[in-house]
This record gives sequence, structure tokens and C-alpha cells, in this order.
Amino acid sequence: MKIVCIGSGNLATNLTRAWKTVGQPIAQVFSRSAEHAQLLAKQLDCPWTTSAETIITDADLYLFALKDSALQEVATRMRPNKGLWVHTAGSLPMNVLQPFSDRHGVLYPLQTFSKNRLAAWRTIPIFLETSHKEDGALLETLARQLSDDVRFLSSEQRKHIHLAAVFACNFVNHLYAIAGNLLTEAHVPFETLLPLIDETAAKVHRLTPKEAQTGPAIRYDENIIHKHLTLLNEHPEWQTLYERLSQDIHQKAHQ
Amino acid sequence: MKIVCIGSGNLATNLTRAWKTVGQPIAQVFSRSAEHAQLLAKQLDCPWTTSAETIITDADLYLFALKDSALQEVATRMRPNKGLWVHTAGSLPMNVLQPFSDRHGVLYPLQTFSKNRLAAWRTIPIFLETSHKEDGALLETLARQLSDDVRFLSSEQRKHIHLAAVFACNFVNHLYAIAGNLLTEAHVPFETLLPLIDETAAKVHRLTPKEAQTGPAIRYDENIIHKHLTLLNEHPEWQTLYERLSQDIHQKAHQ
Repeated sequence: MKIVCIGSGNLATNLTRAWKTVGQPIAQVFSRSAEHAQLLAKQLDCPWTTSAETIITDADLYLFALKDSALQEVATRMRPNKGLWVHTAGSLPMNVLQPFSDRHGVLYPLQTFSKNRLAAWRTIPIFLETSHKEDGALLETLARQLSDDVRFLSSEQRKHIHLAAVFACNFVNHLYAIAGNLLTEAHVPFETLLPLIDETAAKVHRLTPKEAQTGPAIRYDENIIHKHLTLLNEHPEWQTLYERLSQDIHQKAHQ
Repeated sequence: MKIVCIGSGNLATNLTRAWKTVGQPIAQVFSRSAEHAQLLAKQLDCPWTTSAETIITDADLYLFALKDSALQEVATRMRPNKGLWVHTAGSLPMNVLQPFSDRHGVLYPLQTFSKNRLAAWRTIPIFLETSHKEDGALLETLARQLSDDVRFLSSEQRKHIHLAAVFACNFVNHLYAIAGNLLTEAHVPFETLLPLIDETAAKVHRLTPKEAQTGPAIRYDENIIHKHLTLLNEHPEWQTLYERLSQDIHQKAHQ
């Protein structure tokens, strides 16, 4: 399989390095940034380019791992070819690639990726979609090299999963950030929270989040809530968040 | 050491069962609910009572693990004694127990507890405070039977930690609940999110939350954000949360 990776960010880096590890090389890397293209190509031991017009035309798979807004711009500049064009975005429908290639699809791994941290791919759910059934088999073979959890899913369902992931990952991580700031103000190190963060995540493996919930909001303990809001006087934006989240927890607990 | 446990909830159950496991028995359990008192006393193999007036007076430690609002009411009805009176609340100052016992203190474990799930105590930070230094040594000995992370901390700092814990645990868990609801609506099982939830928690062991952040909010991708808000049309309360959190992520990323 000849794969071109279009993009050099967190997902592009994790995906291509994982494929290389299981013996699937990458034929070429494209990035609009020469620095990023070079950095990834070096790790993958493959050629790189910053010019979409010079992307090779004889690859089997063109994997787009770009910002949603950059995808169309780059695809427009590429030379037409007979390969399978696949994007990796949770929020974009498959057919954004239709104007560029009759053979198109999606490979969406449900995970948060950072360049300096290689993901544990075998348990990551990978959601696939293809315009042609035969391409589904091809993409599934490639995905199964990385993960044991590969599923086919429509664009419609995928966008809901992506939204859920924003809550379960990006927003959760931001609450870690807020908690960390509040600790710093009290001269307590962030690490103090790690056992609590780990247990909060571990609990929902066994209990539903509703069963796992504890704390002042569930019983709407006005005395504690009022004290907490006062402590947040310097952070009006977190006061609003605190109120909204507490009200929602209380309301959902009693539905 | 003769310990009376006043309360029979999540924390009372976890704490007393952990002490029993390491060979520290419990002398008596009090709860306002006979059913709950009996259930915990059976697990601890000790007597129980629902009448605060009959709590024994010759114990070394009276451990209050009650709702904040119930603490004063129960303490008022207890017979005076020479024991050390200790509460377990993150949000209450130590001196709420001063009117009842000259020897008083706090033992606050930073964790989320559920009755049907025994906590892994050895890594849980336990924060102590006592009115008398000698009682600090006594309480520390008891706490170290359970955890390797025992620290002394003022009431002032403890209330900030408690607030941070509400963000890092209760609010995080509620975001898991929202994500789960969104998946259910798309006919995707909650378990699909577990690798993402685990990795989001694991990342902040190595990176700061700010370094670990990914997703549309950090770059304020208006196209995706607008689509997500539209998907949330049926859930105006989550739309507001989504907007607030996204704005705050974006703003903090560029500070």
C-alpha cells in the first residue's frame, strides 16, 4: 500500500508513525510548513513536499489530516489521480471529498493526539466510511493493523460522536486546567489532583456517570455552593460555569 | 484506638472499611437511618445506633462523615467526652467542632467515594488539621495506615482544594454524562468514549492541561463551533455550556 499523508499535525504524526511501527511505510508527506513536513518525514524516513501540486499521483491512499478549513484549499491544488482520498475529521461529512475524487472516504480515530505522545492504538475506536464498498475493505485492512475496534459509521452519526468527544475530552481537560489554576492560587501542586482525576475516569468504566456522581451539586447544597461562588469572586467566568454545571447536575439527578 | 464513625454514607463506608482491612476496628456506627447504620455496622462487625445520645463516651476518635448541614445537629445531641472530634468535610473550617470539643480536627481525603466501590487508599492525598499538636501525631498515625500521602493543611487552603476538586471530579463527571447522552441520541454506546476519557486523564500526568489541550475551541474554529451549537439545538442548557467553555479555552490558550 502506497500512502501519502497530507498534514503534519498531532493526528498525522500519530497515525503515520503507528503505521510505520506495524510495517506500513508512508510514501510522501505534505505540509504547508516546511519545518513540520521535514520533521515528520524524518521520523517516517520518507520524502516530503510543501507544494500540493507535487504530491505523487500513483499512491493507493491520500490521507488528509489537516484543519477542516485547509482541506478544500489543498485538495483543489492537487493533481487528479485514481487513489482513494480519505479525510480524518469528525465534523466533516464524507462528501466534502466528492468534487475531487470519486473514490473517497473517512478514517476517524476517536482519540486526543499530541505530537510528543504516541497513542495506544489497539483500543482506539476507528470509524470508517467509504463511497465504494470495495474501498471499505481496503480501509478496514489498514485500520485493523492499528486497532482492534474498527467500525463503519455514517457521516451523520460521526458528527454526534465528535460533539460528544468535545465534551468528554476538550471540555474535561479545560476543567482540569481550571482546577489546576485554583490549586496554584492556594499554593498546592497540580499533581495533588491526579488520584482524583484518575478515579473519576475509572469510575465510569463500572458505573454510569449518573451513578458515579458525588459532591455538593447533586444535592444542591446551597451553603457549600454559595461559599464556592464567593471563592470564585476573582473569576466571574468560572462562577458562571460553576452555576450552570451545578444546576444541570442537580436537575439531571432528579429526572 | 477506639473509633466511633458518625455517618454511614460513601466516605464513612470507604474510610471505616479501609481501616478494618488494615486491622483498625471501629467501635460503633451512628447514622440517622437505621437501615444504613445496620448495613455499615454489619460490614464492620460492630454495634450501631440511630440515637446520638447513646454514642459511647470513651472513644479516642469521633469521626464525623455527615452532610455539612447535619454535623452541628448531631454534635449538639452527643454527650460531652474527652475524645478527639474530627470531621471529613473539604468545605468546613476545623473550628465548627470547637463548641463541642476542645480537642478537634479534620481528616479530609481528596477522592470521590461510592459505597459499592472500595477506593485505592494508598495514593489518596489525606489532609489533616488539629487544634492540638499532639492530636496531629495521633491522627497522622491513623491516616498513614491508609495512605502514603498524608499532609497537614490549613482550613483556608482546604476550601480551595475542595473547590478545585468539584471542577476536576463532579463537573468532569457531569461532562461525561452529557457526552453519554449525546452518544445515546446517536445510538452509539457510552463505552465507545472510554479510551478517550482514559487518555484525557492520562495526558495530564505528563503534560500540563494547557499543553494537553486539542480540539476546535483552542483555535476557535467558528465553522465547527457553529455546527456543534446547531446540533445542540434541543439542549439549550448545553449550548450555553458549550459556548462558555469554548470561549474560555480559546482565551486561556492565548494568554
